[in-house]
Amino acid sequence: MPRTATDVETRIVSDDHAAIRLWLRMLATNRLIETRMRRLLQERYQTTLPRFDLMAQLERVPGGLKMGELSKRMMVTGGNVTGITDLLEQEGLVERVDDPGDRRAWFVKLTPAGRRAFIGMAREHERWIAEAFGALGTREMSVMVGFLGRLKTRARSLEGRDT
Amino acid sequence: MPRTATDVETRIVSDDHAAIRLWLRMLATNRLIETRMRRLLQERYQTTLPRFDLMAQLERVPGGLKMGELSKRMMVTGGNVTGITDLLEQEGLVERVDDPGDRRAWFVKLTPAGRRAFIGMAREHERWIAEAFGALGTREMSVMVGFLGRLKTRARSLEGRDT
Repeated sequence: MPRTATDVETRIVSDDHAAIRLWLRMLATNRLIETRMRRLLQERYQTTLPRFDLMAQLERVPGGLKMGELSKRMMVTGGNVTGITDLLEQEGLVERVDDPGDRRAWFVKLTPAGRRAFIGMAREHERWIAEAFGALGTREMSVMVGFLGRLKTRARSLEGRDT
Repeated sequence: MPRTATDVETRIVSDDHAAIRLWLRMLATNRLIETRMRRLLQERYQTTLPRFDLMAQLERVPGGLKMGELSKRMMVTGGNVTGITDLLEQEGLVERVDDPGDRRAWFVKLTPAGRRAFIGMAREHERWIAEAFGALGTREMSVMVGFLGRLKTRARSLEGRDT
Protein backbone atom coordinates (compact mmCIF):
# COMPACT_ATOMS: atom_id res chain seq x y z
CA MET A 1 0.00 0.00 0.00
CA PRO A 2 1.58 3.36 -0.98
CA ARG A 3 2.37 5.75 1.85
CA THR A 4 0.58 9.07 1.65
CA ALA A 5 2.93 12.02 1.08
CA THR A 6 3.35 14.03 4.27
CA ASP A 7 3.07 17.80 4.28
CA VAL A 8 1.28 20.60 6.11
CA GLU A 9 -2.00 18.70 5.74
CA THR A 10 -0.80 15.92 8.03
CA ARG A 11 -1.88 18.26 10.83
CA ILE A 12 -5.52 17.32 10.18
CA VAL A 13 -7.16 15.01 12.70
CA SER A 14 -10.57 13.49 12.17
CA ASP A 15 -12.55 15.87 14.36
CA ASP A 16 -11.10 19.02 12.83
CA HIS A 17 -13.43 21.61 11.45
CA ALA A 18 -14.17 21.86 7.69
CA ALA A 19 -12.59 25.31 7.71
CA ILE A 20 -9.29 23.98 9.07
CA ARG A 21 -9.23 21.30 6.43
CA LEU A 22 -9.83 23.88 3.70
CA TRP A 23 -7.23 26.29 5.08
CA LEU A 24 -4.53 23.63 5.36
CA ARG A 25 -5.28 22.44 1.85
CA MET A 26 -5.07 26.03 0.56
CA LEU A 27 -1.68 26.40 2.24
CA ALA A 28 -0.36 23.10 0.89
CA THR A 29 -1.59 23.77 -2.66
CA ASN A 30 -0.20 27.30 -2.68
CA ARG A 31 3.18 26.13 -1.47
CA LEU A 32 3.40 23.40 -4.10
CA ILE A 33 2.54 25.75 -6.96
CA GLU A 34 4.64 28.62 -5.64
CA THR A 35 7.67 26.35 -5.13
CA ARG A 36 7.31 25.19 -8.71
CA MET A 37 7.11 28.78 -10.03
CA ARG A 38 10.20 29.78 -8.03
CA ARG A 39 12.11 26.78 -9.30
CA LEU A 40 11.19 27.40 -12.94
CA LEU A 41 12.05 31.12 -12.72
CA GLN A 42 15.41 30.19 -11.22
CA GLU A 43 16.21 27.42 -13.69
CA ARG A 44 15.04 29.11 -16.85
CA TYR A 45 15.76 32.78 -16.10
CA GLN A 46 18.13 32.76 -13.10
CA THR A 47 15.70 35.11 -11.36
CA THR A 48 13.54 35.11 -8.25
CA LEU A 49 9.81 35.52 -7.63
CA PRO A 50 10.20 38.89 -5.81
CA ARG A 51 12.24 40.26 -8.75
CA PHE A 52 9.63 38.98 -11.18
CA ASP A 53 6.79 40.45 -9.10
CA LEU A 54 8.49 43.83 -8.90
CA MET A 55 9.01 43.97 -12.66
CA ALA A 56 5.39 42.85 -13.17
CA GLN A 57 4.14 45.78 -11.09
CA LEU A 58 6.30 48.25 -13.03
CA GLU A 59 5.28 46.83 -16.40
CA ARG A 60 1.70 47.94 -15.79
CA VAL A 61 2.64 51.57 -15.16
CA PRO A 62 4.85 52.94 -17.95
CA GLY A 63 5.48 56.20 -16.07
CA GLY A 64 6.84 54.29 -13.08
CA LEU A 65 5.86 54.00 -9.42
CA LYS A 66 7.08 55.68 -6.25
CA MET A 67 8.85 53.32 -3.84
CA GLY A 68 6.03 53.50 -1.31
CA GLU A 69 3.40 52.55 -3.85
CA LEU A 70 5.60 49.75 -5.21
CA SER A 71 6.10 48.34 -1.68
CA LYS A 72 2.38 48.43 -1.01
CA ARG A 73 1.57 46.60 -4.23
CA MET A 74 4.13 43.89 -3.51
CA MET A 75 3.02 43.59 0.11
CA VAL A 76 6.61 43.08 1.24
CA THR A 77 8.72 45.41 3.35
CA GLY A 78 10.10 48.64 1.92
CA GLY A 79 13.63 47.42 2.65
CA ASN A 80 13.26 44.40 0.43
CA VAL A 81 11.85 46.47 -2.39
CA THR A 82 14.80 48.86 -2.14
CA GLY A 83 17.30 45.99 -2.25
CA ILE A 84 15.68 44.36 -5.28
CA THR A 85 15.40 47.72 -7.04
CA ASP A 86 19.11 48.42 -6.47
CA LEU A 87 20.10 45.08 -8.01
CA LEU A 88 17.76 45.45 -11.00
CA GLU A 89 19.12 48.98 -11.54
CA GLN A 90 22.72 47.66 -11.55
CA GLU A 91 21.67 45.17 -14.22
CA GLY A 92 20.10 47.92 -16.33
CA LEU A 93 16.56 46.49 -16.03
CA VAL A 94 15.00 49.35 -14.04
CA GLU A 95 15.90 53.02 -13.58
CA ARG A 96 15.12 55.75 -11.08
CA VAL A 97 13.72 58.99 -12.50
CA ASP A 98 13.17 62.26 -10.65
CA ASP A 99 9.68 63.22 -9.56
CA PRO A 100 9.11 66.69 -11.05
CA GLY A 101 6.57 67.42 -8.30
CA ASP A 102 8.81 66.53 -5.33
CA ARG A 103 12.56 66.97 -5.47
CA ARG A 104 13.16 64.49 -2.64
CA ALA A 105 11.21 61.69 -4.37
CA TRP A 106 11.64 59.59 -7.49
CA PHE A 107 9.86 57.07 -9.63
CA VAL A 108 11.11 53.59 -10.48
CA LYS A 109 10.40 52.36 -14.01
CA LEU A 110 11.44 49.56 -16.33
CA THR A 111 14.12 50.37 -18.89
CA PRO A 112 13.44 49.26 -22.49
CA ALA A 113 15.77 46.29 -21.84
CA GLY A 114 13.88 45.51 -18.63
CA ARG A 115 10.58 45.58 -20.44
CA ARG A 116 11.82 43.21 -23.14
CA ALA A 117 13.23 40.83 -20.54
CA PHE A 118 10.00 40.93 -18.55
CA ILE A 119 7.71 40.28 -21.53
CA GLY A 120 9.56 37.08 -22.38
CA MET A 121 9.46 35.80 -18.80
CA ALA A 122 5.82 36.78 -18.35
CA ARG A 123 4.75 34.77 -21.38
CA GLU A 124 6.51 31.67 -20.06
CA HIS A 125 5.21 32.27 -16.53
CA GLU A 126 1.66 32.46 -17.85
CA ARG A 127 2.17 29.17 -19.66
CA TRP A 128 3.41 27.50 -16.45
CA ILE A 129 0.38 28.72 -14.54
CA ALA A 130 -2.07 27.58 -17.22
CA GLU A 131 -0.33 24.19 -17.09
CA ALA A 132 -0.57 23.98 -13.28
CA PHE A 133 -4.28 24.88 -13.35
CA GLY A 134 -5.07 22.49 -16.20
CA ALA A 135 -6.72 20.21 -13.63
CA LEU A 136 -9.72 22.59 -13.55
CA GLY A 137 -12.11 23.71 -16.29
CA THR A 138 -12.90 27.37 -16.99
CA ARG A 139 -16.24 27.12 -15.20
CA GLU A 140 -14.62 25.56 -12.12
CA MET A 141 -11.92 28.23 -12.06
CA SER A 142 -14.60 30.88 -12.17
CA VAL A 143 -16.47 29.28 -9.23
CA MET A 144 -13.25 29.22 -7.24
CA VAL A 145 -12.45 32.86 -8.07
CA GLY A 146 -15.88 33.71 -6.65
CA PHE A 147 -15.31 31.77 -3.42
CA LEU A 148 -11.90 33.36 -2.95
CA GLY A 149 -13.37 36.80 -3.57
CA ARG A 150 -15.77 36.26 -0.66
CA LEU A 151 -12.91 35.08 1.55
CA LYS A 152 -10.87 38.16 0.68
CA THR A 153 -13.75 40.50 1.46
CA ARG A 154 -14.31 38.70 4.76
CA ALA A 155 -10.63 38.85 5.71
CA ARG A 156 -10.50 42.57 4.94
CA SER A 157 -13.59 43.26 7.02
CA LEU A 158 -12.21 41.27 9.98
CA GLU A 159 -9.01 43.32 9.85
CA GLY A 160 -11.03 46.52 9.74
CA ARG A 161 -12.92 45.42 12.85
CA ASP A 162 -10.05 44.66 15.22
CA THR A 163 -7.22 46.97 14.13
CA MET B 1 -15.95 56.67 -5.68
CA PRO B 2 -13.87 54.43 -3.38
CA ARG B 3 -10.43 53.46 -4.68
CA THR B 4 -9.91 49.72 -5.06
CA ALA B 5 -7.35 48.33 -2.61
CA THR B 6 -4.10 47.52 -4.40
CA ASP B 7 -2.36 44.22 -3.84
CA VAL B 8 -0.85 41.36 -5.79
CA GLU B 9 -4.03 41.14 -7.88
CA THR B 10 -3.33 44.53 -9.44
CA ARG B 11 -1.02 42.56 -11.76
CA ILE B 12 -4.08 41.38 -13.68
CA VAL B 13 -4.69 42.96 -17.08
CA SER B 14 -7.84 42.43 -19.06
CA ASP B 15 -6.55 39.83 -21.49
CA ASP B 16 -4.96 37.64 -18.84
CA HIS B 17 -5.86 34.01 -18.71
CA ALA B 18 -8.47 32.66 -16.25
CA ALA B 19 -5.72 30.60 -14.60
CA ILE B 20 -3.61 33.68 -13.88
CA ARG B 21 -6.59 35.41 -12.36
CA LEU B 22 -7.28 32.42 -10.12
CA TRP B 23 -3.64 32.03 -9.11
CA LEU B 24 -3.22 35.70 -8.19
CA ARG B 25 -6.45 35.60 -6.21
CA MET B 26 -5.27 32.47 -4.38
CA LEU B 27 -2.02 34.23 -3.50
CA ALA B 28 -3.75 37.40 -2.32
CA THR B 29 -6.32 35.50 -0.23
CA ASN B 30 -3.68 33.28 1.35
CA ARG B 31 -1.52 36.25 2.24
CA LEU B 32 -4.43 38.12 3.83
CA ILE B 33 -5.48 35.15 5.97
CA GLU B 34 -1.92 34.11 6.84
CA THR B 35 -0.99 37.67 7.83
CA ARG B 36 -4.01 37.74 10.13
CA MET B 37 -3.09 34.40 11.74
CA ARG B 38 0.50 35.55 12.29
CA ARG B 39 -0.69 38.79 13.81
CA LEU B 40 -3.15 37.07 16.17
CA LEU B 41 -0.57 34.47 17.27
CA GLN B 42 1.87 37.29 18.00
CA GLU B 43 -0.60 39.53 19.82
CA ARG B 44 -2.37 36.89 21.86
CA TYR B 45 0.43 34.35 22.47
CA GLN B 46 3.66 36.19 21.61
CA THR B 47 4.50 33.33 19.27
CA THR B 48 5.13 32.82 15.56
CA LEU B 49 3.49 30.67 12.89
CA PRO B 50 6.59 28.42 12.40
CA ARG B 51 6.70 27.76 16.18
CA PHE B 52 2.99 27.00 16.19
CA ASP B 53 3.33 24.70 13.15
CA LEU B 54 6.22 22.81 14.72
CA MET B 55 4.28 22.25 17.93
CA ALA B 56 1.23 21.17 15.88
CA GLN B 57 3.27 18.50 14.12
CA LEU B 58 4.64 17.20 17.43
CA GLU B 59 1.24 17.20 19.08
CA ARG B 60 0.03 14.52 16.67
CA VAL B 61 2.87 12.13 17.48
CA PRO B 62 3.18 11.57 21.24
CA GLY B 63 6.40 9.55 20.84
CA GLY B 64 8.05 12.43 19.01
CA LEU B 65 9.56 12.88 15.55
CA LYS B 66 13.12 12.75 14.22
CA MET B 67 14.42 16.09 13.00
CA GLY B 68 14.41 14.97 9.35
CA GLU B 69 10.77 13.90 9.52
CA LEU B 70 9.82 17.10 11.32
CA SER B 71 11.53 19.22 8.65
CA LYS B 72 9.78 17.34 5.87
CA ARG B 73 6.38 17.82 7.47
CA MET B 74 6.92 21.52 7.95
CA MET B 75 8.34 21.91 4.45
CA VAL B 76 10.92 24.42 5.67
CA THR B 77 14.68 24.02 5.80
CA GLY B 78 16.30 21.75 8.39
CA GLY B 79 18.23 24.78 9.70
CA ASN B 80 15.06 26.64 10.61
CA VAL B 81 13.58 23.62 12.32
CA THR B 82 16.73 23.21 14.41
CA GLY B 83 16.68 26.88 15.45
CA ILE B 84 13.02 26.80 16.43
CA THR B 85 13.48 23.52 18.30
CA ASP B 86 16.42 24.98 20.27
CA LEU B 87 14.34 27.96 21.37
CA LEU B 88 11.31 25.87 22.31
CA GLU B 89 13.60 23.54 24.27
CA GLN B 90 15.06 26.47 26.21
CA GLU B 91 11.51 27.50 27.10
CA GLY B 92 10.69 23.97 28.30
CA LEU B 93 8.03 23.40 25.63
CA VAL B 94 9.80 20.60 23.73
CA GLU B 95 12.51 18.10 24.66
CA ARG B 96 14.99 15.92 22.81
CA VAL B 97 14.98 12.21 23.70
CA ASP B 98 17.48 9.57 22.61
CA ASP B 99 16.55 7.20 19.83
CA PRO B 100 17.08 3.72 21.32
CA GLY B 101 17.64 2.33 17.80
CA ASP B 102 20.34 4.81 16.73
CA ARG B 103 22.74 6.36 19.22
CA ARG B 104 23.55 9.31 16.91
CA ALA B 105 19.85 10.28 16.48
CA TRP B 106 17.13 11.62 18.73
CA PHE B 107 13.43 12.37 18.76
CA VAL B 108 11.85 15.75 19.49
CA LYS B 109 8.63 15.70 21.49
CA LEU B 110 6.36 18.11 23.35
CA THR B 111 6.82 18.33 27.11
CA PRO B 112 3.62 18.21 29.22
CA ALA B 113 3.87 22.00 29.56
CA GLY B 114 4.33 22.29 25.79
CA ARG B 115 1.28 20.15 25.18
CA ARG B 116 -0.87 22.26 27.52
CA ALA B 117 0.34 25.49 25.91
CA PHE B 118 -0.31 24.12 22.43
CA ILE B 119 -3.84 22.88 23.18
CA GLY B 120 -4.92 26.33 24.33
CA MET B 121 -3.45 28.05 21.28
CA ALA B 122 -4.82 25.44 18.87
CA ARG B 123 -8.36 25.93 20.13
CA GLU B 124 -8.11 29.69 19.58
CA HIS B 125 -6.40 29.21 16.22
CA GLU B 126 -9.23 26.96 15.10
CA ARG B 127 -11.74 29.59 16.14
CA TRP B 128 -9.89 32.27 14.12
CA ILE B 129 -9.90 30.05 11.04
CA ALA B 130 -13.58 29.20 11.35
CA GLU B 131 -14.22 32.95 11.65
CA ALA B 132 -12.15 33.76 8.54
CA PHE B 133 -13.92 31.07 6.51
CA GLY B 134 -17.38 32.07 7.70
CA ALA B 135 -17.97 33.63 4.29
CA LEU B 136 -18.48 30.13 2.85
CA GLY B 137 -21.00 27.42 3.69
CA THR B 138 -19.99 23.82 4.47
CA ARG B 139 -21.03 22.66 1.01
CA GLU B 140 -18.98 25.40 -0.66
CA MET B 141 -15.95 24.59 1.49
CA SER B 142 -16.24 20.98 0.46
CA VAL B 143 -16.38 21.91 -3.25
CA MET B 144 -13.26 24.03 -2.81
CA VAL B 145 -11.42 21.25 -0.96
CA GLY B 146 -12.15 19.04 -3.98
CA PHE B 147 -10.83 21.59 -6.49
CA LEU B 148 -7.68 22.13 -4.43
CA GLY B 149 -7.16 18.39 -4.19
CA ARG B 150 -7.09 18.18 -7.98
CA LEU B 151 -4.64 21.09 -8.16
CA LYS B 152 -2.36 19.39 -5.62
CA THR B 153 -2.39 16.11 -7.53
CA ARG B 154 -1.63 17.98 -10.75
CA ALA B 155 1.23 19.95 -9.17
CA ARG B 156 2.77 16.78 -7.77
CA SER B 157 2.56 15.00 -11.12
CA LEU B 158 4.17 17.98 -12.92
CA GLU B 159 7.06 17.90 -10.45
CA GLY B 160 7.45 14.18 -11.00
CA ARG B 161 7.66 14.73 -14.74
CA ASP B 162 10.42 17.31 -14.93
CA THR B 163 12.62 16.67 -11.92
